Amino acid sequence: MISRETIPDRIPVPRSKENDYTPEMAAKRREVIRDQTGASLSHVGQYSFDPGILPGNIENFVGVAQVPIGVAGPLRINGEDAKGDFYIPLATTEGTLIASYNRGMRLVSECGGVKTTVVEDSMQRAPVFILSDARAAREFGRWVDENFAWIKAQADATTGHGRLHNIQQFAVGPLRYLRFNYTTGDAAGQNMAGKATHAACEWIRNNYSGKVRYFLSGNIDTDKKHSHLNTLLTRGKRVVAEVVIQRQVLQDIMHIDTKHLYWTRQVQMTGAFLAGSANNGAHAANGLAALFIATGQDAANIAESHAAITYSQYLEDGNFYWSITLPSLIVGTCGGGTGLPTQKQCLEMLGCHGPGKVKKFAEICAAVVLAGETSLAAAMLNGDWVVAHEKMGRNRPEPKSEV
Amino acid sequence: MISRETIPDRIPVPRSKENDYTPEMAAKRREVIRDQTGASLSHVGQYSFDPGILPGNIENFVGVAQVPIGVAGPLRINGEDAKGDFYIPLATTEGTLIASYNRGMRLVSECGGVKTTVVEDSMQRAPVFILSDARAAREFGRWVDENFAWIKAQADATTGHGRLHNIQQFAVGPLRYLRFNYTTGDAAGQNMAGKATHAACEWIRNNYSGKVRYFLSGNIDTDKKHSHLNTLLTRGKRVVAEVVIQRQVLQDIMHIDTKHLYWTRQVQMTGAFLAGSANNGAHAANGLAALFIATGQDAANIAESHAAITYSQYLEDGNFYWSITLPSLIVGTCGGGTGLPTQKQCLEMLGCHGPGKVKKFAEICAAVVLAGETSLAAAMLNGDWVVAHEKMGRNRPEPKSEV
Amino acid sequence: MISRETIPDRIPVPRSKENDYTPEMAAKRREVIRDQTGASLSHVGQYSFDPGILPGNIENFVGVAQVPIGVAGPLRINGEDAKGDFYIPLATTEGTLIASYNRGMRLVSECGGVKTTVVEDSMQRAPVFILSDARAAREFGRWVDENFAWIKAQADATTGHGRLHNIQQFAVGPLRYLRFNYTTGDAAGQNMAGKATHAACEWIRNNYSGKVRYFLSGNIDTDKKHSHLNTLLTRGKRVVAEVVIQRQVLQDIMHIDTKHLYWTRQVQMTGAFLAGSANNGAHAANGLAALFIATGQDAANIAESHAAITYSQYLEDGNFYWSITLPSLIVGTCGGGTGLPTQKQCLEMLGCHGPGKVKKFAEICAAVVLAGETSLAAAMLNGDWVVAHEKMGRNRPEPKSEV
Amino acid sequence: MISRETIPDRIPVPRSKENDYTPEMAAKRREVIRDQTGASLSHVGQYSFDPGILPGNIENFVGVAQVPIGVAGPLRINGEDAKGDFYIPLATTEGTLIASYNRGMRLVSECGGVKTTVVEDSMQRAPVFILSDARAAREFGRWVDENFAWIKAQADATTGHGRLHNIQQFAVGPLRYLRFNYTTGDAAGQNMAGKATHAACEWIRNNYSGKVRYFLSGNIDTDKKHSHLNTLLTRGKRVVAEVVIQRQVLQDIMHIDTKHLYWTRQVQMTGAFLAGSANNGAHAANGLAALFIATGQDAANIAESHAAITYSQYLEDGNFYWSITLPSLIVGTCGGGTGLPTQKQCLEMLGCHGPGKVKKFAEICAAVVLAGETSLAAAMLNGDWVVAHEKMGRNRPEPKSEV
Repeated sequence: MISRETIPDRIPVPRSKENDYTPEMAAKRREVIRDQTGASLSHVGQYSFDPGILPGNIENFVGVAQVPIGVAGPLRINGEDAKGDFYIPLATTEGTLIASYNRGMRLVSECGGVKTTVVEDSMQRAPVFILSDARAAREFGRWVDENFAWIKAQADATTGHGRLHNIQQFAVGPLRYLRFNYTTGDAAGQNMAGKATHAACEWIRNNYSGKVRYFLSGNIDTDKKHSHLNTLLTRGKRVVAEVVIQRQVLQDIMHIDTKHLYWTRQVQMTGAFLAGSANNGAHAANGLAALFIATGQDAANIAESHAAITYSQYLEDGNFYWSITLPSLIVGTCGGGTGLPTQKQCLEMLGCHGPGKVKKFAEICAAVVLAGETSLAAAMLNGDWVVAHEKMGRNRPEPKSEV
Repeated sequence: MISRETIPDRIPVPRSKENDYTPEMAAKRREVIRDQTGASLSHVGQYSFDPGILPGNIENFVGVAQVPIGVAGPLRINGEDAKGDFYIPLATTEGTLIASYNRGMRLVSECGGVKTTVVEDSMQRAPVFILSDARAAREFGRWVDENFAWIKAQADATTGHGRLHNIQQFAVGPLRYLRFNYTTGDAAGQNMAGKATHAACEWIRNNYSGKVRYFLSGNIDTDKKHSHLNTLLTRGKRVVAEVVIQRQVLQDIMHIDTKHLYWTRQVQMTGAFLAGSANNGAHAANGLAALFIATGQDAANIAESHAAITYSQYLEDGNFYWSITLPSLIVGTCGGGTGLPTQKQCLEMLGCHGPGKVKKFAEICAAVVLAGETSLAAAMLNGDWVVAHEKMGRNRPEPKSEV
Repeated sequence: MISRETIPDRIPVPRSKENDYTPEMAAKRREVIRDQTGASLSHVGQYSFDPGILPGNIENFVGVAQVPIGVAGPLRINGEDAKGDFYIPLATTEGTLIASYNRGMRLVSECGGVKTTVVEDSMQRAPVFILSDARAAREFGRWVDENFAWIKAQADATTGHGRLHNIQQFAVGPLRYLRFNYTTGDAAGQNMAGKATHAACEWIRNNYSGKVRYFLSGNIDTDKKHSHLNTLLTRGKRVVAEVVIQRQVLQDIMHIDTKHLYWTRQVQMTGAFLAGSANNGAHAANGLAALFIATGQDAANIAESHAAITYSQYLEDGNFYWSITLPSLIVGTCGGGTGLPTQKQCLEMLGCHGPGKVKKFAEICAAVVLAGETSLAAAMLNGDWVVAHEKMGRNRPEPKSEV
Repeated sequence: MISRETIPDRIPVPRSKENDYTPEMAAKRREVIRDQTGASLSHVGQYSFDPGILPGNIENFVGVAQVPIGVAGPLRINGEDAKGDFYIPLATTEGTLIASYNRGMRLVSECGGVKTTVVEDSMQRAPVFILSDARAAREFGRWVDENFAWIKAQADATTGHGRLHNIQQFAVGPLRYLRFNYTTGDAAGQNMAGKATHAACEWIRNNYSGKVRYFLSGNIDTDKKHSHLNTLLTRGKRVVAEVVIQRQVLQDIMHIDTKHLYWTRQVQMTGAFLAGSANNGAHAANGLAALFIATGQDAANIAESHAAITYSQYLEDGNFYWSITLPSLIVGTCGGGTGLPTQKQCLEMLGCHGPGKVKKFAEICAAVVLAGETSLAAAMLNGDWVVAHEKMGRNRPEPKSEV
């Protein structure tokens, strides 16, 4: 290891103490980068807004990533908040993604659309309190339960939109992990939950008679990370998208049979279980990441949001019921990047910018995911068929008694 | 459900059969969107390149998401391929992210820098073969092993860069899941692996004496999804970042003690285990998502790439050894979005554009993640201290015999 | 497959409609077995009780497995219910198991004993209700919450000891998984919970206005199976055992240092996290299985009971705090096999037979587990040392700055 | 905490240095227990063999647990090693267990029997080597690969039956977890694998040029613990049991329809995935624990052995294909408790005592598990029906278009 003293001079990134959010400062930083690395940031430097809007969104601003946006749809959604036909903005650099989602949107729309429902809504911060032993931790847990109204008052006082609903407790040795569950209005709400929980924890520390220490996060929240806990207990929105795939429509558009689709689901669910996957569907992350980037969501939340549980059934009439449940979809229509120019415009395409829109947006997310699932499943089956067709020059008979 | 016939006319997104990748077609689509949704896409329509470069990256192009980029660093890295001080482009809309990573970069750089190592490299496609029963599946598995050279020849013939290294097998009932492992040069390589595996599977189907069916993915790959399998067996790059945090530097910059850091790691690791988390560190997804968007990586791969295993030890001399292992980091320096204008420029900032650079880039990713871990850990500890300081008006003594 | 008609005559196991629980019927069955298989069951046929006590415990009785019991201890326990020095009956056929646990018991006892605490107590049956769609399922869930008092009345009416405390809900598509949580007195309580939940579900089906179907288990309980859900949310008893290992005692008895023990814990916890293990400790199942068989517990519950979370810290004074939390320990002191002769005697050894004893017994289980953990950890470290000693003929110096 | 000096005299368990395995010593110990605890061990003291046979199986012997054995079957098995109709000895204290398995055995036997196949066979010890950093660990890993023949020679030399087949490697920071895979003849083989791996590790330590330390277990093996790793990569035997349930037989014996069975499997698999269960079937642990205790297996291995993956399909002819895969079944027909009197007799009932029998026994285990699955599934469905019948006084029509 190089000792601390011998580090050669490192050129720091320039900053302005008066106003760092100006085109000039951005240009100055690009210049230093160019000098130091030889890389021109000419394209990065082209953006269509005043950097003065950026405080709270970024530091050391130099320009923008221009991520191509394509439009898929229209996608018919029969939600509680999202109702109608939607054009979906998807920011991606992966070819065929939009074409594939588009095809799935056609299928589900022609089957009558996707039914969407937000079934739970809860954002967390989960501190851990450290007591002297397990008994003290249990005692502490009881005290927290008994003083919930006081704790809630402290938490709620810090925020106009956040409301603490309950605190779940998890005991390990002398540790008491507390999971504070909030509704957070139209914001994703991590910061709101963090601030409120900090206030609550400080009140607890000052009012609990015993000696107690805590960390604001005990790593069970699990912010920006997938966890089984969040699949079980919800983080952000728990949303369900459902569709009944009509046998004839599937045949017409995708050239596959519902019975065969069902048959393959068994294999795919088995694979997901075997692999220990966060998602027993296909590729929720694809549609979500593209939609997140377009609409100013935090793309790091793909870590949590891509978890999913698919449940399907073959119906007596030959149609196919297909649902996907996203247990930890983290989205907002206020705050974060949702107010930046291109991001705001994409939310507006969906009628989802601003307050009162977050459930609608969550429903759209789930509908997009389900559309993408149908398309990929069909592609995989079709590829199989197509090759068989080419090879054998005839339609392959329906499988009989396969296992 | 609305029956298929009653669906009102849906206005399709306009396309041109001759050339869909023109400013005019993009404008036409924006117009339809505006007409249909009332949303202007004025900012979305501002981009600095010719849409003619986009085939293979997007369909139904309308414009771009402008995602703000800030610069963090310099970050000192002592890798095998990444050596020196790096300025890191991070595309994000989450305030404080860059400031926080920046602080971590200062800490680890002043401690001598981050040592980085790519320890494995492997991209997959994992088809499933369906046999008549478990015995037939076992027999099939043996045949695959015996014919590996032939299978490899088929797979490798489809690609200039991909090389099939081995096939792992997983048996469930009559199913045989095969996991094809490739090196894929400087591309992330999913498509390469898919194409090669398809050729291999077709050869298998045509040459295996028994009756066999397959799906190109059996859902154990697990593309765009976290899975325990990939944490164990690697997907993309398995990279390790290591640093020895010097006690004095930590004190000077973060005002916390290495001993206390170690103490808290026990609590955090316990929380991650309890939660069933994909990552027993803090927030890898934050740095990775920002770096991915800036450099044209597929942001959907945050699902896999954010998995991590932290391992640390308190050293006899009072310093603190800290490592983070990313078992499924999926990155490329060729292909995908890496050639688009702003993305290419950000890769150039890192000296990572083009062939021969992917391991260097993977090392930088891991170093960034580790820097971010140190910063968040310190912030959480500091917050604790800070509040105590304010409350008690004095420095709190070091904890004694805490559990 | 052989068609149904061609199955040759299979000799059924003889049964008596009047009284099947007699020495004569047992002998008759042993005879048939001997005739059919050539195996004498002479030892199996030797038991010291009247088969008339067996209804409710077994069908088609032929005799007994004689599983050797050894005694370990005394083990000092400072529990809430278990207080004092205990001799522990362990039924096993694995050599060294008792010797190893015995050594651990000596260590923890000389360190002042194990502190034990039952922190939660909850047995489940978790039916799943199937609704027409996600919205109907959410509506149903609300109805269940609102009608909890009625549902509880139905459940509690079926049992003298069981009490329904709350119902947790988990939503997936059109499914509503309900997790009924009971206290079940001194019985393990699965049957009690099943019966009560069945009554509750029937009441729900008859009183809910909408159409609803259910299965009594939706496979999330997860009876006789490990699950992450149960690690999080407790099944049976959640018990913690804690000990402060005194540095000098560890040196004297095990010849290893607390600092080294702590160092190795980091490696072991990392391994458990990497492997996706149900337990980040060492070998809880060993002690539990032996104690379960001796005392008439259901050995199948080892599946759930062996899960554990170890949390430890090195203390400022050089001692070592060590805790283990068993989140799903399933035990009873009434019902099941606890009343059979040898099983009852082993419970009596522990002062744990009959009503009012189940928490005491749960505490003993946890204390035994912790004793076993210390012994195996030391053995692994010692093995390392011992070999080094033999090889090098000298004491190896303490490790310096190892990672 | 009580300080070490103040511990009152604890009465140790008596031992004889000359010969501890005598009826007299057992009696002496029972006496001390009685004096100390007041518990008579009169029944415990009744056993039908000479304690002189017990060295290697137990220490501090006082007598036996008499666990009731019942017989289920005959069960028709069409295995590779297990062929014919088998009477199954089950040691349990849980009423209805045998009746339920018995019913399942009748069902699967009348459907032609259970097809069983051992598809993999591998026992492990998984040490961890600690290097100075990740690069050194990677280098070490390569050296291990290159020196496999030497390492194997060391390992194989320690045992007559064990053979080292390969070493899997897992990298985390500076750690290299090695998973040594052995075949172990007819023994479960943990000790064999441990001894051989220890010899191999010592050779590695002495021959590797760099500085290296290791622990004989890095906690990824995961001995006596469930882990996702073992579900993926096999521990002990990976066995599959398969049956085609004939629609008419299911109707006749269980009064349910195959279509309905298939329908419910979707719900059960979803529940298992949601819960993060080790087993997406029903209750493998029940049959296995009872069979393990009867036949002298190590009951602690229920922790690993109860893991299972169910895969099923509805067939075109209305029959139902059902498979269960046990990925980590740990059994032996030599060693451990298999030679004790009652245990040996139970193995003899199955024609499974001694060398050359372990695969046959593994097949029987899997067949028993599958029989139990069918019975519990039917009971749950029937219960539903039965109640409906009682309540409504009529047959309920088959469900239509349920989801």
